[in-house]
Amino acid sequence: MIRAAAGRLEGHARRTPLLSSPFLDEIAGRRVLVKPECLQHTGSFKYRGGRAAVSALEPKIRAKGVIAFSSGNHAQGVALAAREFGVPAVIIMPADAPRLKIDNTRALGAEVVLYDRAGGESREEIGAALTEERGLTLIKPYDEPEVIAGQGTCGLEIAEQARDAGVERGDVLVCCGGGGLTSGIALALEADAPGLRARPCEPEGFDDTARSLAEGRILANATGAGGICDAIVTPQPGEITFEIMSRLCGPGLVVSEHEVLAAMALAFQRLKLVAEPGGAVALAAALFHPGEIEGDAVICTISGGNVDAAMFIRALQTAKG
Amino acid sequence: MIRAAAGRLEGHARRTPLLSSPFLDEIAGRRVLVKPECLQHTGSFKYRGGRAAVSALEPKIRAKGVIAFSSGNHAQGVALAAREFGVPAVIIMPADAPRLKIDNTRALGAEVVLYDRAGGESREEIGAALTEERGLTLIKPYDEPEVIAGQGTCGLEIAEQARDAGVERGDVLVCCGGGGLTSGIALALEADAPGLRARPCEPEGFDDTARSLAEGRILANATGAGGICDAIVTPQPGEITFEIMSRLCGPGLVVSEHEVLAAMALAFQRLKLVAEPGGAVALAAALFHPGEIEGDAVICTISGGNVDAAMFIRALQTAKG
Repeated sequence: MIRAAAGRLEGHARRTPLLSSPFLDEIAGRRVLVKPECLQHTGSFKYRGGRAAVSALEPKIRAKGVIAFSSGNHAQGVALAAREFGVPAVIIMPADAPRLKIDNTRALGAEVVLYDRAGGESREEIGAALTEERGLTLIKPYDEPEVIAGQGTCGLEIAEQARDAGVERGDVLVCCGGGGLTSGIALALEADAPGLRARPCEPEGFDDTARSLAEGRILANATGAGGICDAIVTPQPGEITFEIMSRLCGPGLVVSEHEVLAAMALAFQRLKLVAEPGGAVALAAALFHPGEIEGDAVICTISGGNVDAAMFIRALQTAKG
Repeated sequence: MIRAAAGRLEGHARRTPLLSSPFLDEIAGRRVLVKPECLQHTGSFKYRGGRAAVSALEPKIRAKGVIAFSSGNHAQGVALAAREFGVPAVIIMPADAPRLKIDNTRALGAEVVLYDRAGGESREEIGAALTEERGLTLIKPYDEPEVIAGQGTCGLEIAEQARDAGVERGDVLVCCGGGGLTSGIALALEADAPGLRARPCEPEGFDDTARSLAEGRILANATGAGGICDAIVTPQPGEITFEIMSRLCGPGLVVSEHEVLAAMALAFQRLKLVAEPGGAVALAAALFHPGEIEGDAVICTISGGNVDAAMFIRALQTAKG
């Protein structure tokens, strides 16, 4: 399925490079190779899964349109994919999502429906009504095989690029929300680079995946929203993604928000890349948790770069201060 | 010479991608394709020329070491290339160069000698004494065939990537200081993409190349330093680079510092890239001077990303305000 998705994404998704900096190697105490999905279309890896899922639909079904729930990155990925196929997209977004993400989703031609996350509005109810009324197809953000396959195309690239860089063994740290990217990469590595092992990375307070893997069953976070890592804050791992991660992934890594901000500042300074907080979690783990990682080299994703200027300035100022 | 340099750079210089954003296309009124040399090793295209020149030296000569004058990007390019060959590098830098560039050059193993630009110290005298004493070879920043050939490898990539993107005709806007990158790209395009035309881009007050091309003879700037675009502020075009640019380049484009800051903010927001002021000049021209550009598509370099946090924050705040 991942190879089929890669075929459908060819000429559409960008093949992002694998970057490095001697300055980051020195901090981490080992080679650090960075897969910058912030350079993907729409500024995050989510375009891969969005395009894979939309392109897999029957043309007649697809023509009626698609619908997605998202705080922003999945929203943009699905919106762009729908626009490329000339079909309508409805995106249900929390009203407190970053402004840039809401604006971009609208600019990509999607109809954005905002709901009040704190006020108890149910996005599922809003979505169900719209879906029935218009015959839309729901594109889930992670617990959906075609979406996982699309995210897995990132893993196929990592397998090939790591081999070119002479890295055959080691950990691949992945920014993890519901587990779509992590499980997709894990499946790709199983097939193409069995010496590499995917490991989910999460911020403190939202370490549902790390705890779930440690316990061997799905556990939820105390709260489903909050913190600075909006892109990867999910209540709990998906059913499908958890099954894959349990089978294939190493233990999860958990980083502090301060480490996330410091990693954003280092991505700015050393890689010339813009990482959003949720997208900098794996780099933070690579740089600041070296004792929890195995091998002479570590690979990490920067999963997205959709961050408002104010938050980015906060990261740069935190690092200076 | 460019193809020979490309051979020597293979496996060393990064092949940077060609990026785009529908949001930038909309601002510019045409397709905008961006060549992000900020993702090159050392954060600027200068590594290409530095490595090309150092690798072209006779091993016996090279072993004695190299010396360069630079406000920062050429410094880092030469320092890294020298380190890769295990030979000493002495870099003469102005004491008021951005702190990041001085620190990085030292961290890459070079001996940094600072001079007081305002106080009238002659860097040429300092350099001449060191060169004679130690038998170092001077690597000039732009008016040197091997350096131009190295920068030209960026043009070979542009020619191929533009063809892949379906762009056969149009302007290639290049951030221009002494003209090394501009003339190198111009030569590469002449050979591999004759429908593409290189055009130098400069900030107001430092438009020596634009005026020189318009007059048909080398003209100098009123002042040799100042402004925010430290990477590309040079007194006048080089002899060799001017000859090449006169023969091959279209008219120069001149942008304001405000446009440069706005382009930096848009590179942050839309491309997730960190551009330094001098590196954002061509993007500023592509976005804000559409009437001076020909064709349905425009290609522009982001030539470097070595910017201090304070200047980057200024760009983000200027754009918001």
